[in-house]
Amino acid sequence: MTRFFITLAYLGTGLSGFQDQPGKETVQTTVERALEKVLGEKLRIIPSGRTDKGVHAIAHPAHFDVKSEKALARIHKSDFLLKLNAVLPDTIVATSVRETRNDFHARKSADAKEYTYLILLATHKNPFWEDRVWRISKNLDVMAMKKATRHLLGTHDFSSFCASDAAPGSKIKTIKNITIHQPLPAPAFALPDQFLLQISFIGDGFLKQMVRSIVGTLVEIGLGRLNPEHMKAILNGKDRKLANRTAPAQGLHLVSVKY
Amino acid sequence: MTRFFITLAYLGTGLSGFQDQPGKETVQTTVERALEKVLGEKLRIIPSGRTDKGVHAIAHPAHFDVKSEKALARIHKSDFLLKLNAVLPDTIVATSVRETRNDFHARKSADAKEYTYLILLATHKNPFWEDRVWRISKNLDVMAMKKATRHLLGTHDFSSFCASDAAPGSKIKTIKNITIHQPLPAPAFALPDQFLLQISFIGDGFLKQMVRSIVGTLVEIGLGRLNPEHMKAILNGKDRKLANRTAPAQGLHLVSVKY
Repeated sequence: MTRFFITLAYLGTGLSGFQDQPGKETVQTTVERALEKVLGEKLRIIPSGRTDKGVHAIAHPAHFDVKSEKALARIHKSDFLLKLNAVLPDTIVATSVRETRNDFHARKSADAKEYTYLILLATHKNPFWEDRVWRISKNLDVMAMKKATRHLLGTHDFSSFCASDAAPGSKIKTIKNITIHQPLPAPAFALPDQFLLQISFIGDGFLKQMVRSIVGTLVEIGLGRLNPEHMKAILNGKDRKLANRTAPAQGLHLVSVKY
Repeated sequence: MTRFFITLAYLGTGLSGFQDQPGKETVQTTVERALEKVLGEKLRIIPSGRTDKGVHAIAHPAHFDVKSEKALARIHKSDFLLKLNAVLPDTIVATSVRETRNDFHARKSADAKEYTYLILLATHKNPFWEDRVWRISKNLDVMAMKKATRHLLGTHDFSSFCASDAAPGSKIKTIKNITIHQPLPAPAFALPDQFLLQISFIGDGFLKQMVRSIVGTLVEIGLGRLNPEHMKAILNGKDRKLANRTAPAQGLHLVSVKY
């Protein structure tokens, strides 16, 4: 058995998230089917974590084990990635694959993850960005949002920002950094009076819908409906009901996982 | 009768270009239908020019005339654009509308047009850019391409770079500027070893498939299959058969029209 490390990128639009579900078009189902086609061996990929329906990934790592000699010979050929990508749909690409140690685990070995949430500040839609952003037509107080993020840094029980149907277990996570970038015209496809607000999160891991829940509350603060200090109260309350609406999936992008 | 100036942006994917054609989903058909729905008056929009199937626009201007008092009252309301955009599909947006002089003509009054052609230099596809670029997996000699563009600047008979089924008439056009930007990682969705090459064209007008034909020949030069001086020979030959393949529509973006 030889273990491989693969990095995937995908446009989440039209996909039902990472994990396989019967009858749904997921990243896992699609990639496993493509690997089987190219390698001639049925196998399972273990991702660094799941993503929800509609969420995108710039670099989503996973590992898988290859058993047969035939499959091993095929994966070691220089055109393996080209062949795999030819079989994958336009929405999914494998950007790299390499052999790794047998004790490497895409989820358990992960040290840090980075997510980016994109908000388009715009009255009118932008056809080029519509499925990759949360569009908000009101002004956001970015300074207030930045103030609120300070309460989230460090190690906390994030129960208030975890989906109610998440797996049981510890809700303690560490957020190392949150950056709210200055709003900029949407690169390449800027329309008048539209600005892209990028919020980046780096942490040791994130609970189900944690980034989207935090962004939902940050936007309430940006809209002036809550003050920045409220973030602390919501976090300390450790109760999902305290947090606000969850930001829509299509604005969320898994950027990288560090090992 | 009151004349209006409207600016449209659209993702060309899935659209059959600007001009209406029976049974096809075009920008013109879709926008005229939406305007009729909101204004209660059937009208025709006259664009600055046509775009081919699959071509995108960041700002495509057009004009149209409103006759009834009822429609005029509706278009002058502050929520007119919001209503129009709510009726338009996600792929098309009107970014502005304003009253203009009755002798203004979106095509005839145009002074200059800017197009951008996007090439993704990448071995593997990029799911976020796939329908907005021409992806090329071989290295391009950008310096040679830049050299070749010099022959195109100024006023020339561009017959060699005009679709064979174009309308009859003068093939003389003036290109004011061609800029080939330094290749950069694709903004917001950069995958490893992928670079976006942006080629911008400014001219008084462009013949049918002129930008795409020029880009097709520029890429042949970038690939080293033709030398930069060939561009001059092709231009001087004034024969469509001399030019190379036409670059695919999905990389072309109408950026702006100046009046």
